[in-house]
Amino acid sequence: MEDKSMERGAAAPKLQFAPFCSALEAGFWHQLTQKKLNDFRLDESPKNIKGYYYNGDPVGLPTRLTLEFSAFDVDGATPARCCPASGTLYNTNTLEAFKTTDKKALLDKAANEIWSVIQSGAVLEDSSILNKFILLTFADLKKYHFYYWFCFPALCFLEGVQLVQEPVSLEQSFSAKQISCLQTAYDNLCVSSGTTAVPHFLLKYTEESVEVAPLKDLTSFFPDLKKITVGVYDPCTLPQHPGWPLRNFLILLAKKWYVCNELFQHASHWSLPDQNPIVSFSPRCVGWEKNAKGAMGPRSVNLSECMDPKRLAESSVDLNLKLMRWRLVPSLDLDKVVSTRCLLLGAGTLGCNVARTLMGWGVRHITFVDNAKISYSNPVRQPLYEFEDCLSGGKAKALAAVDRLKKIFPGVNAEGYNMSIPMPGHPVNFSELTMAQARQDVEQLEKLISEHDVVFLLMDTRESRWLPTVIAASQRKLIVNAALGFDTFVVMRHGLKKPKESQSEESSPMEPALLARSSLFSNIPGHRLGCYFCNDVVAPGDSTRDRTLDQQCTVSRPGLAMIAGALAVELMISVLQHPEEGYAVASSSDDRMNEPPTSLGLVPHQIRGFLSRFDNVLPASLAFDKCTACSPIVLDNYEREGFQFLAKVFNSSHSFLEDLTGLTLLHQETQAAEMVIDETAFKSCNR
Amino acid sequence: MEDKSMERGAAAPKLQFAPFCSALEAGFWHQLTQKKLNDFRLDESPKNIKGYYYNGDPVGLPTRLTLEFSAFDVDGATPARCCPASGTLYNTNTLEAFKTTDKKALLDKAANEIWSVIQSGAVLEDSSILNKFILLTFADLKKYHFYYWFCFPALCFLEGVQLVQEPVSLEQSFSAKQISCLQTAYDNLCVSSGTTAVPHFLLKYTEESVEVAPLKDLTSFFPDLKKITVGVYDPCTLPQHPGWPLRNFLILLAKKWYVCNELFQHASHWSLPDQNPIVSFSPRCVGWEKNAKGAMGPRSVNLSECMDPKRLAESSVDLNLKLMRWRLVPSLDLDKVVSTRCLLLGAGTLGCNVARTLMGWGVRHITFVDNAKISYSNPVRQPLYEFEDCLSGGKAKALAAVDRLKKIFPGVNAEGYNMSIPMPGHPVNFSELTMAQARQDVEQLEKLISEHDVVFLLMDTRESRWLPTVIAASQRKLIVNAALGFDTFVVMRHGLKKPKESQSEESSPMEPALLARSSLFSNIPGHRLGCYFCNDVVAPGDSTRDRTLDQQCTVSRPGLAMIAGALAVELMISVLQHPEEGYAVASSSDDRMNEPPTSLGLVPHQIRGFLSRFDNVLPASLAFDKCTACSPIVLDNYEREGFQFLAKVFNSSHSFLEDLTGLTLLHQETQAAEMVIDETAFKSCNR
Repeated sequence: MEDKSMERGAAAPKLQFAPFCSALEAGFWHQLTQKKLNDFRLDESPKNIKGYYYNGDPVGLPTRLTLEFSAFDVDGATPARCCPASGTLYNTNTLEAFKTTDKKALLDKAANEIWSVIQSGAVLEDSSILNKFILLTFADLKKYHFYYWFCFPALCFLEGVQLVQEPVSLEQSFSAKQISCLQTAYDNLCVSSGTTAVPHFLLKYTEESVEVAPLKDLTSFFPDLKKITVGVYDPCTLPQHPGWPLRNFLILLAKKWYVCNELFQHASHWSLPDQNPIVSFSPRCVGWEKNAKGAMGPRSVNLSECMDPKRLAESSVDLNLKLMRWRLVPSLDLDKVVSTRCLLLGAGTLGCNVARTLMGWGVRHITFVDNAKISYSNPVRQPLYEFEDCLSGGKAKALAAVDRLKKIFPGVNAEGYNMSIPMPGHPVNFSELTMAQARQDVEQLEKLISEHDVVFLLMDTRESRWLPTVIAASQRKLIVNAALGFDTFVVMRHGLKKPKESQSEESSPMEPALLARSSLFSNIPGHRLGCYFCNDVVAPGDSTRDRTLDQQCTVSRPGLAMIAGALAVELMISVLQHPEEGYAVASSSDDRMNEPPTSLGLVPHQIRGFLSRFDNVLPASLAFDKCTACSPIVLDNYEREGFQFLAKVFNSSHSFLEDLTGLTLLHQETQAAEMVIDETAFKSCNR
Repeated sequence: MEDKSMERGAAAPKLQFAPFCSALEAGFWHQLTQKKLNDFRLDESPKNIKGYYYNGDPVGLPTRLTLEFSAFDVDGATPARCCPASGTLYNTNTLEAFKTTDKKALLDKAANEIWSVIQSGAVLEDSSILNKFILLTFADLKKYHFYYWFCFPALCFLEGVQLVQEPVSLEQSFSAKQISCLQTAYDNLCVSSGTTAVPHFLLKYTEESVEVAPLKDLTSFFPDLKKITVGVYDPCTLPQHPGWPLRNFLILLAKKWYVCNELFQHASHWSLPDQNPIVSFSPRCVGWEKNAKGAMGPRSVNLSECMDPKRLAESSVDLNLKLMRWRLVPSLDLDKVVSTRCLLLGAGTLGCNVARTLMGWGVRHITFVDNAKISYSNPVRQPLYEFEDCLSGGKAKALAAVDRLKKIFPGVNAEGYNMSIPMPGHPVNFSELTMAQARQDVEQLEKLISEHDVVFLLMDTRESRWLPTVIAASQRKLIVNAALGFDTFVVMRHGLKKPKESQSEESSPMEPALLARSSLFSNIPGHRLGCYFCNDVVAPGDSTRDRTLDQQCTVSRPGLAMIAGALAVELMISVLQHPEEGYAVASSSDDRMNEPPTSLGLVPHQIRGFLSRFDNVLPASLAFDKCTACSPIVLDNYEREGFQFLAKVFNSSHSFLEDLTGLTLLHQETQAAEMVIDETAFKSCNR
């Protein structure tokens, strides 16, 4: 202990410490965002994080404690020659909680931890606890605004620390040789300690040599404890002041030895206060960082501009969905939704609204098929198009829809096919060219359906739905179908045939157990549900011929397509969330009072809406064994003959399919009975 | 009759006529479009139209019959020196009807009309019937493709007309003086006939003078009928051939006089065929124009590129709506819908969807109020924004929404106000500046509400709905309100207070007749319906404080806002179509089985939707006399004290409004009863 005799008077200057500036890099905030979204969610409990500081900065730089991308990887590497500091993150869910968090309590808690390891002596084993920091944050992930308040807890001597000698630099105290020796010794200490920098250490030296040791070696390193010299890895660049890491170390020294010492980067001499043994009670503490205005208060950072906008968009879009799951539907399988590949046949009023709702649900893989061009009447009802898309004859809808999706959300994986779908009763055998084109269209459609998980039928004619119904039924793909009348709509899932390997089971007589549970209209399992054509007793034909204008075009209440489009997607989501997916038993209106089959609610077969009554009903109906689209004989012919069979259907009048399925015979049988099935309101569908 | 003696042999050349080319100008098609949309609609009956031809074209120009903008104004002016021609328009509703129209029958009908006035002699009174044409059209107004086939019916001599002398020009037959005299005489004839050009006339001349007369003056003009000279206003520019207008005139001459004559523009000599008296039976006829390829067939024109795109967009957008009315809802008052001025408070998820549906209905006047900026999570759920709108901190929603509407439909009249709506429990008295700002916001909102017909409440907090509810209630403006939960929504119209002049009636005890008809939940007239706050027993306060993130932001099934937004507009439309508008008695779920009050159906008070059950219910409820927003005492205080009263509400806790309305007392009275009104699902509303 040097200069112990020096008079301690009121005039003696106090030792002042340069506080840490928190340096929170963008990478830290980005990682916090990810952690919040994927791990923490609404969990507000304290989290361990890690920062570091450096003692090699040029003079003038503030003393920084840096937190970056790696802050959450507490066992990860620290940058070379930097000293790690561990901390505790308190991330609140609301700005209000951030504001009202009891900062004094947090600081006291940390200070008590430090004080207790000092008292117990455990600090000698690992002095890094003296550098433990606190970070209080609130992340507004909607706007990428981050609020934070940093705290480096420091125990305080009641009266401060009096300087007994002006600080001198290491170069003034040590010779070049000593410094070189010190560096070598310190480096070796770091290696043997398994760290990039040891924050505090023991030091002894002669003119020829310098030795260092970890704190725990105290008694063996200084056998007589007569004179102790310690070193501190000091990040402060100011010549006259030590950095913050010295503060708690001084308290440790005072408690332990009532000593003075030499610093490492600076060599300082000081006198400890009188209250020795300093404290039997907890010392007072400070540490909350001042804000940019120099006042006590939190800081904030707006990263919305410097983060990669496309990445920002992606994580922002996911946020609502994740929040929905965290808070409201913990069982929601979002990954299944997001990874569903959707094929939209029709990019008109329904197609646009379906695509928009899919985007809202986070679906990333959307493919459009349409052969129409955008006309001037479209943009006000088809929410992916604008006036400019109508100029010069109009862009192709399928391609313009893709462009728009990318403008809405650059992360989408969208494709468009400007192609026609061959239809029954619309002959393709005018020439070899038209036949080749039809064959190519069929093959393209088969390929597209095989590459997607769900097929949406959103066209404006009944007969254009026939071919995709047949192909998707054969490929066992889920079909969601929507069609509009003037103020009525139908949204339905087609029955999903059982896998082909279990066909024998399918064609065998219905199991008695199933028969007992399901009737004609209730408890119908998904594989026995009907398709769009099952209720028809005529085959699809050329329905646009000879229609007057208003039947051909969109004559529906403008809100109808938005409602039907939204319901088509919500129906798909509900089906996908059911463990049996497309095979789920159909819910009906009667099930509204019962326990729903999924956390999202009912899984109906059909939703039939009546806007004039603001009412929906949920009918369910069985597949029809003479259906012109999904009956076994049609699928069988398609699977055996392929395009040859399809070409016959395209080129023939509707009697071909009716003869094939036995509908013709049925007609003859029922003619006398004058069966009337009033489905016409739902068949005048629109884009 | 000159050269009567000339031998008629097989070698004698036949007179050939230059047929009319139809010249249908863009203005004609534009006007046809307007007529179809506004007058004809689905009426396919023949319409009178008017064209004209000109005899002063330079040599080489085809002989044109021109139809332009004025074609439908049959009594309107004809361009100077042009000869009017009247015609009949057959506009079909479908291309199929266009193709299958019996063209021979149309031609025969016209020919018979011509032949019958020739036989009766009525043609002498007005020979313009000889120039009567036919126009068959189909207008594809979706694409601005027009299909047409023009016919200028001409009766034919069985064997044609033999030329007995090469045609000579007027200059070869007449001296300059004669020509000058002829022009003067003809001009005078036109003036006295009240027309721009007389198609056929009588002519006599000496070397010194030329006299002309109308056909009806035949016997007085040519007393001896020995030699008759006639003139024809001939549009043909070819020196050797007369134009089409001569054809039927020749038949008239042949029938009447069996004569030869001189032409006007050309001077031709010819011999009529042998079958004299030509016909006692109807002569055969020709007249359908050849198409551009020179074959018999229709022509088509694509005007989508040359018509003014913005005008095209406007008429296209109106088409669907008009079709809806013509075919499905003849009583629909579209003008009322289109002219409704809508104020949208909130331009988030609901606001965007409401605006889109309004555009679909043809509403042209849309104003947005919002104070938020577009963030990255918005575009996939808020269908007026795109990724680019989020960059650089995000555009103001209210302004970006306006830009988007104009991109969708340039004819829209949209405005945006980037402003905040002061709220109860959100103090504004921090400084004079904040008070002044609040006063300005209130005044702006009052002005906006007064300038609109319907106010949509589409915000994401409950308390921001309070001020517009009070102002609009005081101004007697219809409010449509929409709010979302996770999978539930409410869409409602606020009760519309009776006009202030009938206030006394309002505050008087309920009329017994009304009482008898309406109960607490059914048959409630519009002026007694509740507002959004009527079901609450607490005043609106700061509901965003201390909410966790997922309650503050959009955590709803993505399809929900589309459905609720669409229903909000459809509800407005239904209300506006009711003769009593906002005062209409509220329909309820029970009314679904009854005769609907309007052609569009029910006019409910509230639509409460449950997406998990795909179900809507239609509750109706009375205004609450202690309501913190629409009760007489609140409105009275607002109307008396204005901003002073509002400022008290903003700056006070919710107990201020509760004390004022008597809710506090009610609480005390009912505390023991533990009344629970579970409205919370509908109060966590979102944008």
